[in-house]
Amino acid sequence: MLIIGERINSSRKRIAQAILSHNSGFIQNEAKAQTDAGATYIDLNAGSFIGEEAKRLKWLIEVVQEVTDHPLCIDSPDPEVIKAVLPMIKTAPMINSITLEPDRLKGILPLVAEHKSKVVALCQTQDSIAETTEDKVNLAGQLVEKVTASGIPLDDLYIDPLLYPLGTNTESPKATLDAIEQIMKQFPGVHTTCGLTNVSYGLPNRKLVNRTFLVAAIGRGLDSAIIDPTDKKLYGSLKTALMIMGKDEFCMEYITAFNQGRLE
Amino acid sequence: MLIIGERINSSRKRIAQAILSHNSGFIQNEAKAQTDAGATYIDLNAGSFIGEEAKRLKWLIEVVQEVTDHPLCIDSPDPEVIKAVLPMIKTAPMINSITLEPDRLKGILPLVAEHKSKVVALCQTQDSIAETTEDKVNLAGQLVEKVTASGIPLDDLYIDPLLYPLGTNTESPKATLDAIEQIMKQFPGVHTTCGLTNVSYGLPNRKLVNRTFLVAAIGRGLDSAIIDPTDKKLYGSLKTALMIMGKDEFCMEYITAFNQGRLE
Repeated sequence: MLIIGERINSSRKRIAQAILSHNSGFIQNEAKAQTDAGATYIDLNAGSFIGEEAKRLKWLIEVVQEVTDHPLCIDSPDPEVIKAVLPMIKTAPMINSITLEPDRLKGILPLVAEHKSKVVALCQTQDSIAETTEDKVNLAGQLVEKVTASGIPLDDLYIDPLLYPLGTNTESPKATLDAIEQIMKQFPGVHTTCGLTNVSYGLPNRKLVNRTFLVAAIGRGLDSAIIDPTDKKLYGSLKTALMIMGKDEFCMEYITAFNQGRLE
Repeated sequence: MLIIGERINSSRKRIAQAILSHNSGFIQNEAKAQTDAGATYIDLNAGSFIGEEAKRLKWLIEVVQEVTDHPLCIDSPDPEVIKAVLPMIKTAPMINSITLEPDRLKGILPLVAEHKSKVVALCQTQDSIAETTEDKVNLAGQLVEKVTASGIPLDDLYIDPLLYPLGTNTESPKATLDAIEQIMKQFPGVHTTCGLTNVSYGLPNRKLVNRTFLVAAIGRGLDSAIIDPTDKKLYGSLKTALMIMGKDEFCMEYITAFNQGRLE
């Protein structure tokens, strides 16, 4: 399971403040906490600094690479920003994200291929987002085609089928679950990933909803997630779900995480 | 989702003591607590009283029916015991359980048909228990055939594919999940049910494992469970999983349960 730690995102007020005030200690603590909690990639997002995204992202990369050897997930929709920061990256990163928008494909896929990075691909075109299972699987197929045609191995592709709020459409999360299962079956070797927070928008006890969705998604084959790994209940659900799906030989990872106090 | 409240079982020491001492208040409190917590059926098991099972079960039925109108789940493998207690039952019950053992089929199916009760059927023969997905689905097919041939509607059949400890075989719970999905697809109209406690045998934080399995199973189509509904974390996982699977219109059941303090 590839875990992308989502905490360093400028849409969070305290992160934006730390970036603005060059509070490197605060950012480094966030990076270390996520590394210790089990993140495999550390997501970095400076998207709320319009016109300054590349500059702010460079600073984030610099300070985070000082404290962790974990690979980074460069979170930007802008090919120019990604291109500007990639030379600084020490370890092959993940790029988050492409869609089927032609400019993003054209700008980002050559960078992914050149840097042998992984890439998150959203089931989305310039005109539409995929809401039904059929649409999600259809767009996933187009993404597989575009990505592999660029010489990128299927093993580096993480398809995000997108997840919408239950409160708006109670059928929507099930469509995402069904899409995860179908994408994993139809394109053997590809990966799926997902952010969770949308699903619970507007509901009480959002964290319960998020972690319950994560368990159901792992039960359908999801093999990556964009989460806050320092949320022990969420992390406990994740490790337990993987064990239940037969992905934890002799239950050793579960027992180790329990002994280290990292569950619940 | 049909919830079978499992607490009144003589394998639990305090229940056995209450039965022995005719402590009807204790048993009635257990029945009321489960009713209030969301059980649809109240399971009654006096199996540890060898030679006295019918007598003890009759007492349980009598005291429980005084405090709840909820239907009962008569939990015994013995056709003679079931036959002896059925005349006392006020509301069409569930019978828990049959297997493919000829004596149990021959003894119990006519009673199920006559009393228009529901029936739990385990994927098990006189010689073997089903461990692989293939075996579980195969035995489920035989159970469907036997039950419907006795004139019992498919809608009254709750197949339990059986669940074994992760600690013994890490592949085993996944086989159960896959079986749930296949049984629900291959025999439209049938139901599946499952007890949870086996899965976590020998592991730390058993309740986390149990409720995580329940979420994954609901995600595969499980539509009944034999559980302790007074465990709020378990019940919260159950209600949330149902909502995520699109089975809670406008999220009203989830929000109501939250407002009543019944989640977590």
